[in-house]
Amino acid sequence: MKNNKIQPNILPGFMELLPKEQKIFNDMLRKITRVYEENGFKSMDTPVIEKTEILLAKTAGETEKQVYSFKKGSNNLTLRFDLTVPFARFVVQYFNELTFPFKRYQIGKVYRGERNQRGRYREFYQCDLDIIGNNKLSINNDALVISMVSKGFKAIRLKNYKFQISNRKILSSILEEIGVLEKNEAMILIDKYDKIGEEEFNKELEKLVGYEKSSIINKILNSKGSSDEIITKLKQLNLKSEKLNVGIEELEQVRKMLLILGVEENEYVINLKIIRGLDYYTGTVFETFLEGNESYGSICSGGRYDNLARNYTDNILPGVGTSIGLTRLFFVLKEIGFINNYEIENLVEYLIISIGNTLEYCVGIYKQLQNNGKKVELYLEDDKLKKKLNYANKLEIQKVILVGEEEVLKGKIKIKDMVSGNESIVDYDQI
Amino acid sequence: MKNNKIQPNILPGFMELLPKEQKIFNDMLRKITRVYEENGFKSMDTPVIEKTEILLAKTAGETEKQVYSFKKGSNNLTLRFDLTVPFARFVVQYFNELTFPFKRYQIGKVYRGERNQRGRYREFYQCDLDIIGNNKLSINNDALVISMVSKGFKAIRLKNYKFQISNRKILSSILEEIGVLEKNEAMILIDKYDKIGEEEFNKELEKLVGYEKSSIINKILNSKGSSDEIITKLKQLNLKSEKLNVGIEELEQVRKMLLILGVEENEYVINLKIIRGLDYYTGTVFETFLEGNESYGSICSGGRYDNLARNYTDNILPGVGTSIGLTRLFFVLKEIGFINNYEIENLVEYLIISIGNTLEYCVGIYKQLQNNGKKVELYLEDDKLKKKLNYANKLEIQKVILVGEEEVLKGKIKIKDMVSGNESIVDYDQI
Repeated sequence: MKNNKIQPNILPGFMELLPKEQKIFNDMLRKITRVYEENGFKSMDTPVIEKTEILLAKTAGETEKQVYSFKKGSNNLTLRFDLTVPFARFVVQYFNELTFPFKRYQIGKVYRGERNQRGRYREFYQCDLDIIGNNKLSINNDALVISMVSKGFKAIRLKNYKFQISNRKILSSILEEIGVLEKNEAMILIDKYDKIGEEEFNKELEKLVGYEKSSIINKILNSKGSSDEIITKLKQLNLKSEKLNVGIEELEQVRKMLLILGVEENEYVINLKIIRGLDYYTGTVFETFLEGNESYGSICSGGRYDNLARNYTDNILPGVGTSIGLTRLFFVLKEIGFINNYEIENLVEYLIISIGNTLEYCVGIYKQLQNNGKKVELYLEDDKLKKKLNYANKLEIQKVILVGEEEVLKGKIKIKDMVSGNESIVDYDQI
Repeated sequence: MKNNKIQPNILPGFMELLPKEQKIFNDMLRKITRVYEENGFKSMDTPVIEKTEILLAKTAGETEKQVYSFKKGSNNLTLRFDLTVPFARFVVQYFNELTFPFKRYQIGKVYRGERNQRGRYREFYQCDLDIIGNNKLSINNDALVISMVSKGFKAIRLKNYKFQISNRKILSSILEEIGVLEKNEAMILIDKYDKIGEEEFNKELEKLVGYEKSSIINKILNSKGSSDEIITKLKQLNLKSEKLNVGIEELEQVRKMLLILGVEENEYVINLKIIRGLDYYTGTVFETFLEGNESYGSICSGGRYDNLARNYTDNILPGVGTSIGLTRLFFVLKEIGFINNYEIENLVEYLIISIGNTLEYCVGIYKQLQNNGKKVELYLEDDKLKKKLNYANKLEIQKVILVGEEEVLKGKIKIKDMVSGNESIVDYDQI
């Protein structure tokens, strides 16, 4: 440690990447958002800081404890803890200037002062995608949203992800029909199924609703089989609930649309244990797990909500959306070796190295190659050749153009392939 | 205003864009950073929140008053107010893992609680570009940095920008040579020249250094003529100052390199009044103005510094860099009508509209067109045709594919050009 120097480091729970990984992160982001844009989703950006009264309008105690809030002058300010609340505010604020259905995506950092754990970040990127209707929104959008994530994952060549899909109306109405009075508590418990494990879950559920109802619930939750078979079993329950029938119909329609939108059978399963946040989602819900790595938790989740912005407007704005926690996804993909094998081209194709008094000549080559659409970097330092070649090596630039005074006199340039080590001499005019 | 509803709005001094402008903003960003990447600059990202002791290590009172600082638990936290301080910390923290010269660019939001004025933002994007050497860095990089901005501006078709370039060593040594004791005060005053105007400047300068010295300074500052002529006049001063000679040599070399790097004569002038921050820059300095709109201030500035990170390390890390204040630039470009005329293609080429019970057929077309590389959006709502066409109109999608039940039976699709209004019928197989 040096005298009088401040030790350079960042806060725990904040991610920072070295250039090579940053490039992969950016590449993934670019490919996913490209898919979103090509399908008509508009980019959106909102401030990181908003008024506390706006951001915390509808949240209860748990969120408030986690947020970064502070005062500046007489204003109570909060750093956004998700992109959904600012989105709701945005849609209402610019309502008359937006075209509905409004399809948007947004990438941004959000802040949660959570307990510091491996893989949990206090600052992390979210990549949200939503479709908002004015008064109504077709159920087909639920499938479209899932298909966008599927296309995004395919664009980055991610495999082994599995969407686990349900519809909140189904479980909710079944619990009502079989007379579970503690419906919310039961749903919160079901939401925790994977976290606490089967045994603990059974014990807790029985304590909550009694042995008989707990058996019925368990049987339904653990329906095995193809999506078709699960849907058939749900129909055979023969419960006379309008809400249940709507839920089943919606699930069937989502399934049908997924098929025709090109989301393959092996990309998703129906899992009635998927619940998501209680006070927000109302229909389709889904989480996404990496098969064989489910313990890392969901890498992308989303669903349908009846009304995006009731805190700011009386307009009814139904929507469906999804969010990828990019920072966490990157962490998980690093852990499972995906990042290490991520193939990414080096944008820079050539490094031009001047030897002796040839810089001007080198810049000429640089300009000419760039005019021909080549990606070229100039090495400008007056270093030893070894150091110059080392730069190309470290940065994985495949081809080095070496220009000494002799080459200039002869109107030639030497090209060295850093992978094979081969050298070739070409005429300057041939570039 | 509605009952019990929170009025949706954002804080003053924060910029938010509607989708169409956001798209232009993103396009500009993409084009500029593409230039940077193609020339070997690596992307970098740092946290928005850092420890106060890191961010405010070297700043004096003025900055501290403007920053957003707060406590979370026992930590003193600050939102970054520029990208340079985090960059310095980053370079030292990961020193052994970086390849020097380290070329990086970074785009991110920074925070300054400045007095709220038109065109001044409290949250704004900066786009920084820097080259850092380990112990030494060639003067040629100073020109390279300016040429990167030039290429970036050309990529977004910005015209009429003018780099105003100087070298701090020149003015500094001249003031020393003519015996100005109040050198720092004089330089601060010169920095304000354009802000306070000639008359006020002359009065203040005379008060500070006396009539005689003030005349000499004014004559030098207002050297007119081409870059060559100004450099010649500086040489003719015949002051026996080593520092002055170095400054002139550096300026000449930057000028020479700008020429061979393809920065045109009409893109820059030498302006000895350019000073920049006193405690940071040590050689080349530049600002960039829009000709005819100088009153908006500099849209991009930068320069050479001897040592990036003296607060964190004893290593000597000379560098040269530049920063574009993107949020402010966007504001200025809106004001002068550039944004309004910014040409940007609509990524989505086709909107497919289903009429009657033809959705499945439409999705087939959608998939087929996308497989052929076309950018297609599906209209999924069950609305009146007029509303569907209106959606295409508002979002400026040029071609609409209309599929009614009749078209399905005949294996045909109807394509409507929304600009000309022309309709054509093509076979489904022809897509």
